[in-house]
Amino acid sequence: MNVVSTVDPRDGRRRATDLTETDESGLEVTAARASEAAQWLSGLGRVGRAEMLDAIAASLESRRVDLVAAAEAETGLGHARLDQELTRAALQFRMFGEVLRDGGYVEAAIDHAADTPLGRGPDLRRMLVPLGPVAVFGASNFPFAFSVAGGDTAAALAAGCPAVLKAHPSHPLTSHASADAIGSAIRDVGGPEGVIAIVYGEQAGRSLVRHPTIRAAALTGSVGAARAIQAAIDERPDPIPLYAELSSVNPIVVLPGAAADRGEKVAEGLFASFTASGGQLCTKPGLAFVPSDPGGDRLVETLRERVGSSGGTVLLNERIRDAYESGATAFEQAGARVSARPQVDPGAGFSVAPTLLEVGLPGLTAEIADECFGPLMVVVRYRDVAELDAVLATVPSSLTGSVHRGPEDDSDVVRRLVDVLAARAGRIVFDGYPTGVRVSWAQHHGGPWPSTNAVHTSVGATSIRRFLRPLAWQDAPDWILPEELRDGYTAIPRRVDGRLESGMA
Amino acid sequence: MNVVSTVDPRDGRRRATDLTETDESGLEVTAARASEAAQWLSGLGRVGRAEMLDAIAASLESRRVDLVAAAEAETGLGHARLDQELTRAALQFRMFGEVLRDGGYVEAAIDHAADTPLGRGPDLRRMLVPLGPVAVFGASNFPFAFSVAGGDTAAALAAGCPAVLKAHPSHPLTSHASADAIGSAIRDVGGPEGVIAIVYGEQAGRSLVRHPTIRAAALTGSVGAARAIQAAIDERPDPIPLYAELSSVNPIVVLPGAAADRGEKVAEGLFASFTASGGQLCTKPGLAFVPSDPGGDRLVETLRERVGSSGGTVLLNERIRDAYESGATAFEQAGARVSARPQVDPGAGFSVAPTLLEVGLPGLTAEIADECFGPLMVVVRYRDVAELDAVLATVPSSLTGSVHRGPEDDSDVVRRLVDVLAARAGRIVFDGYPTGVRVSWAQHHGGPWPSTNAVHTSVGATSIRRFLRPLAWQDAPDWILPEELRDGYTAIPRRVDGRLESGMA
Repeated sequence: MNVVSTVDPRDGRRRATDLTETDESGLEVTAARASEAAQWLSGLGRVGRAEMLDAIAASLESRRVDLVAAAEAETGLGHARLDQELTRAALQFRMFGEVLRDGGYVEAAIDHAADTPLGRGPDLRRMLVPLGPVAVFGASNFPFAFSVAGGDTAAALAAGCPAVLKAHPSHPLTSHASADAIGSAIRDVGGPEGVIAIVYGEQAGRSLVRHPTIRAAALTGSVGAARAIQAAIDERPDPIPLYAELSSVNPIVVLPGAAADRGEKVAEGLFASFTASGGQLCTKPGLAFVPSDPGGDRLVETLRERVGSSGGTVLLNERIRDAYESGATAFEQAGARVSARPQVDPGAGFSVAPTLLEVGLPGLTAEIADECFGPLMVVVRYRDVAELDAVLATVPSSLTGSVHRGPEDDSDVVRRLVDVLAARAGRIVFDGYPTGVRVSWAQHHGGPWPSTNAVHTSVGATSIRRFLRPLAWQDAPDWILPEELRDGYTAIPRRVDGRLESGMA
Repeated sequence: MNVVSTVDPRDGRRRATDLTETDESGLEVTAARASEAAQWLSGLGRVGRAEMLDAIAASLESRRVDLVAAAEAETGLGHARLDQELTRAALQFRMFGEVLRDGGYVEAAIDHAADTPLGRGPDLRRMLVPLGPVAVFGASNFPFAFSVAGGDTAAALAAGCPAVLKAHPSHPLTSHASADAIGSAIRDVGGPEGVIAIVYGEQAGRSLVRHPTIRAAALTGSVGAARAIQAAIDERPDPIPLYAELSSVNPIVVLPGAAADRGEKVAEGLFASFTASGGQLCTKPGLAFVPSDPGGDRLVETLRERVGSSGGTVLLNERIRDAYESGATAFEQAGARVSARPQVDPGAGFSVAPTLLEVGLPGLTAEIADECFGPLMVVVRYRDVAELDAVLATVPSSLTGSVHRGPEDDSDVVRRLVDVLAARAGRIVFDGYPTGVRVSWAQHHGGPWPSTNAVHTSVGATSIRRFLRPLAWQDAPDWILPEELRDGYTAIPRRVDGRLESGMA
């Protein structure tokens, strides 16, 4: 059995853990338990699952000190950030509790028997039901909120699908402790083993998505990871959906009016957004389009000062540190100038300096318009907003696109830019920054390839849809229907004979 | 340029048409027009598109005589069936008109800025927007309702996505005439070329789904066709969703109480359902589980008489005829006995005899539990309902599963059977037959692999979701938002700060 090791990125030292990589027989046990747990979880019903999610949130919070300490030692992300991330993780479980109690997510619809242009139509009742056990691949950069205790897990459990986590190799102990906190809450509400499980090792991850028990997979990670998982899925006789949140450049356009009006303030915002969490956020702004005018100059000067006077930051692991450094070098070789990069003591761990690069609009090549994970941003200087449309259409599609406007900026220009961004992004941010993804009903965290491979979000209430499938009952007797589809049930929103009933009774 | 030919299945004769297979330059023109049309169609708005869909329905109906005649000559499906199918096609366009006017399908959600456990949350507004041009692969067996004038086209246009049809080679003239009827209606409402287009030839189909303009593909067809299309999609740098409705066995369980109570009536229903449209329906019941008791004997005897005294039926094309005959032979070689098969004059075309096969429950092999497209049904005789659960779990997942109950049947037995079927089907039919798919809000036409590859339906109001993606606006000024997301807009259902507002204002 291969022992799982963990590395503290602050000193770069690798240590053995008590955990071992999951072998095939371990995977079989996990899959069998998940399959059994699926029936219990589905049978628990919406309100029962909401209570379970609340219990999970409370359990995570009750172990906050230990969980945050474990994550600090494995990720190098600071205490404040990790503390807040645990709050976010708990919030996600509680939000899905609300989603379940509301019940609109099942999309209940009833068409009573009726005469139609094609003759007598039968009674039809439809709602969404759980897909079955789901494989969730934890992310490197959010040891809580996009990992074992993350949004994919919360959405899967809310949907009624047991979650089998593939722990990210960068934080196995945090993953283990998170699964333990979640499992404890599930046991407390009477749940069996198998509602949540965790596997370790790349091979186990591939075997997991090939296993017949698994009905869907979710990943927050790299395009390369998604390709490897998809290749494993393609070996199955039966395809299953892979919901992958991947790579994102997140262009920000600062219009001349905004630069003139509040260039320094925008510079502060950009600095905070691209360096937060060591720039290791999928919504990190990678490209900032800044006008070549006095307002833009002031903005860039402020940004340069802030970057130049900042310190080093510890990245999550050696691979990310190396990719960051080789990415920065590649950008420079492709023609981006170093605008600011402080000298920092490399230290023993995976510490790097933030990098601000600059390039003129004509110099923005495909190499430079790529994602570089870590505290790097490219400022692209433009002379005329009319040039932006064509260039933005060549930037890879992203999770987000942002526009900063000032009082002087023409609304037609804004509208055209937003049209261009909207075609290539999942969220349009006005006068703000893409980092800090609100967990709520209207959130969308997704976008055209390569930012995701899906037409669904991975954050927010509607992310539950990924783990559900429709099921219809035709001419069913009342007693066999789920309560959500019986006549007279008014606790949830339903569409009855085409008319939406809001379920506020 | 390769000339497209057409075959009348009633006499098997191949004739040249005026159509030619679409070459690469033709495809480029088509793609460019679709791309331009996408903006027009999206800009038309919900109500504008609803009017367009109504106009399409009216145009199809105004050409009913010619369309039905064209389809008769190319499919051999009877006049009555095709006439009804055209009604169904028009109904689908009108239903999506209703869906658009209702507006709930955009899933509008607004979260106003608010304090959250993670600090101040921004204003977020989300709705579904069109994916962009869609490739639709017409089916052999529904020249209208699942082809050029079919549900996928209607759903795509409703969503705001131009549709590029790949005509099924079995009915090119019907496809052409359908596209002409639809195109005429679109021109009448001021639409450009490219809102709907049609391509001919297998190579054009593959090139179509590889084209960067195409953002999704939909298919009603075989597993083999889906694999070929997916292989072409896999050559793209950017994956696009393929929504495929494929193969389905549609098991029907007749419980002892139903056989005793109304065995002859069930036999009549089964006969009608498995022979309708020459058994060339994806919801055709392929396996009927009938008890080995006097009620079951009477049922089977009636079925045998009905099949034995029936005539031949013309299948859609030579390939389907050959696959039907070799499929029946394979079932017999695997141990199914011929229970009834009338002698019919083979004639000049693709005429075949319906086939009723019979096998004991222990003899039901994987070969026999497979789909055989055409007028073939296997009666599986069982001694004890307790045996059914395990066997049903080995039948390939299907679009539907059906149960016939009688007054004597135990409700616990029914419940257990329904649980087994629900895990492996998209629609559970009680005391009825799976053919005759109602077009309505609560319909679900889909199911686990191999019946579909998707967690979405291809029939009914919610099939529009396949061609939409979420888009979120953060802190957007009111004037740039779509009207559906502005404060105070009450024409559609929306979720505002988590609370569903039904939009009945």
